[in-house]
Amino acid sequence: MILHSYWRSGAAYRTRIALNLKGLEYERRDVDLRTRAHKTPEYLAINPQGMVPALEVEGAVLTQSVAILEWLEEAYPDPALLPTALLDRARVRAMAALIGSDIHPLNNLRVLGAVRGLGADQAGVDAWAGGWIAAGFDALEQMVARDGAGWSFGANPTMVDCYLIPQLYSARRFNVDLSPWPRLLAVEQAAETHPAFIAAHPDKQPDAD
Amino acid sequence: MILHSYWRSGAAYRTRIALNLKGLEYERRDVDLRTRAHKTPEYLAINPQGMVPALEVEGAVLTQSVAILEWLEEAYPDPALLPTALLDRARVRAMAALIGSDIHPLNNLRVLGAVRGLGADQAGVDAWAGGWIAAGFDALEQMVARDGAGWSFGANPTMVDCYLIPQLYSARRFNVDLSPWPRLLAVEQAAETHPAFIAAHPDKQPDAD
Repeated sequence: MILHSYWRSGAAYRTRIALNLKGLEYERRDVDLRTRAHKTPEYLAINPQGMVPALEVEGAVLTQSVAILEWLEEAYPDPALLPTALLDRARVRAMAALIGSDIHPLNNLRVLGAVRGLGADQAGVDAWAGGWIAAGFDALEQMVARDGAGWSFGANPTMVDCYLIPQLYSARRFNVDLSPWPRLLAVEQAAETHPAFIAAHPDKQPDAD
Repeated sequence: MILHSYWRSGAAYRTRIALNLKGLEYERRDVDLRTRAHKTPEYLAINPQGMVPALEVEGAVLTQSVAILEWLEEAYPDPALLPTALLDRARVRAMAALIGSDIHPLNNLRVLGAVRGLGADQAGVDAWAGGWIAAGFDALEQMVARDGAGWSFGANPTMVDCYLIPQLYSARRFNVDLSPWPRLLAVEQAAETHPAFIAAHPDKQPDAD
């Protein structure tokens, strides 16, 4: 497997965590978003959307982190990143989607560039990003209170933790005060000693600053 | 099943299509986003995130359209909204996620309100929404060219069509010229004569203007 990755991309970070949790080996190809390497003809031939991550497997290119994670779960079911009961699976997927649809897409590089284009300064950009993070984390904290037991859902890492840890990392970059969400911080603490999460961390990637 | 819906919400529209494709009966409860009915204590007790859709089933409340659609697929597998082969499933999910993560979240009511808050006028809001739609549709058009055969993926409606049709409806509201994406328009034409899509259309909902 070849993972097209960028150290600071939250969606690539998610995918690295999931690959590590599944115990899968992969080759990493770095795509520097700051030099617009994701918009070169070479990369667009791999992923026409010009985004990371992309995962080359079995002669195909998989895109969109949620599709990659669901594929990993179906192709390599052990260890499972989703619970067994259907309603529980729906809960984990909803928590992941809350981050993947309602927080992260509003705070990525291209959108923050557009926010700056509307005249926002750095404080305005931080307020934009921080506002969406706070709205999402307020709801997620309640969901973890209900279903978490060491991790976001239950006592083992699941798909939602692949999303949560990168989102917490991103929130720190926007100077968000995370103290209102102690349950999310407790999950982050668990991840800090878990090898799959440690190895996936942006600072551990060879393309990091 | 009780679906908490709003006629113009793209995510609720998706869910109505999927319920109809599965041939499932449901009771509809309308949540008027314009009067902020989604932020009342009564609704927040149902969905702490204060968003539609929410689907009450078997004593549980499911949130986030992608989680609801995946649950429907697992609980009511026939007719299938995902293909059988794992790589094909990943392709359909990627196309759906392109809309669900990279287009729709940037154009919903709360985000457009924030864009207005940064000083954008109506033309600026249309340009904001239209830009994300165009970037996503450019990539999606190539994916449909590759895998579509009457519908977005293959010859039958799949999960991605549940996302595409509401996104095309939304694009028209933002006065986006859709002529650059003939393959997406061909799928829309197919949906216009399909009972599940017809019944799910915003204009057919009792809470429509």
